[in-house]
Amino acid sequence: MKEIKAFVKPNRIQRIIEALTDNGFKSMTLSQAEGTGAFKAKGAKPSLDFHVTNSPVVKLELVCQNEEAQSAIDIILKNGKTLDPGDGIIYLSEIEDAFQIKTEESLKQFKI
Amino acid sequence: MKEIKAFVKPNRIQRIIEALTDNGFKSMTLSQAEGTGAFKAKGAKPSLDFHVTNSPVVKLELVCQNEEAQSAIDIILKNGKTLDPGDGIIYLSEIEDAFQIKTEESLKQFKI
Amino acid sequence: MKEIKAFVKPNRIQRIIEALTDNGFKSMTLSQAEGTGAFKAKGAKPSLDFHVTNSPVVKLELVCQNEEAQSAIDIILKNGKTLDPGDGIIYLSEIEDAFQIKTEESLKQFKI
Repeated sequence: MKEIKAFVKPNRIQRIIEALTDNGFKSMTLSQAEGTGAFKAKGAKPSLDFHVTNSPVVKLELVCQNEEAQSAIDIILKNGKTLDPGDGIIYLSEIEDAFQIKTEESLKQFKI
Repeated sequence: MKEIKAFVKPNRIQRIIEALTDNGFKSMTLSQAEGTGAFKAKGAKPSLDFHVTNSPVVKLELVCQNEEAQSAIDIILKNGKTLDPGDGIIYLSEIEDAFQIKTEESLKQFKI
Repeated sequence: MKEIKAFVKPNRIQRIIEALTDNGFKSMTLSQAEGTGAFKAKGAKPSLDFHVTNSPVVKLELVCQNEEAQSAIDIILKNGKTLDPGDGIIYLSEIEDAFQIKTEESLKQFKI
């Protein structure tokens, strides 16, 4: 199984989620983060509560079967672009296993 | 070493942490996230600050030795269940190494 | 490629970011988390919004080329220490690939 972690612009998250959902990816989680990059002035203090920064990003986490990973990445790439700098980044990594808490089933052998 | 990442219901996190602590897992981190799944109406806009969503989840991250991983997963499975849909999911992945910042020691060879 | 995930004290994040930036690491993300450890009284209820806890931590995520990982870890170790208990922890793991959303390029073959 693969884990896809994408750091995207907040104003693109809605369309990314809808496109993923339309393509059968049902289960994701979102969290709020703050990006820091070359575009950010050195010495700019990261806000302690991350609500007033000028570079908020949304982190999307998604686990899928190996053969679904490229499709999910393509959907995020296609729907995540903006006209501004710093559209974000997608990481792909290997997951050994996943368990649904409700059923205690391993998802290794199932489509999720 | 293994990383266990669990997305659980906020009202189960307290008992999960206590059960993990009682079993010798001392060091974890929690963060706030928002889950999105089939149960969520399409078109529902994810809140920008993730405080008013109807599907908040808590993300628990825990790193442990290989032989401790199944025990931690079992504890989370056992204590994470609710009567509602969407109890969440647990991911297991491989970590190459971990370093305690205070001592600069690698935790590869120690119990943490 | 490697992923470095560090859970650090909020009052050290600014100097860690500046040291990483000075050494050519340009792209990281920060998010807010709550640490729980042996130092925390059992039964202390994790705050639901993680803003009033007595053990806030900042999570720093950074992806880099294999040969850069040790340097990034050393910078975080050096700049993350405090005189208090619980300076945090750094995890190192393998990433299969990374994609810049703007260009759709894989970062596997490039320095980022």
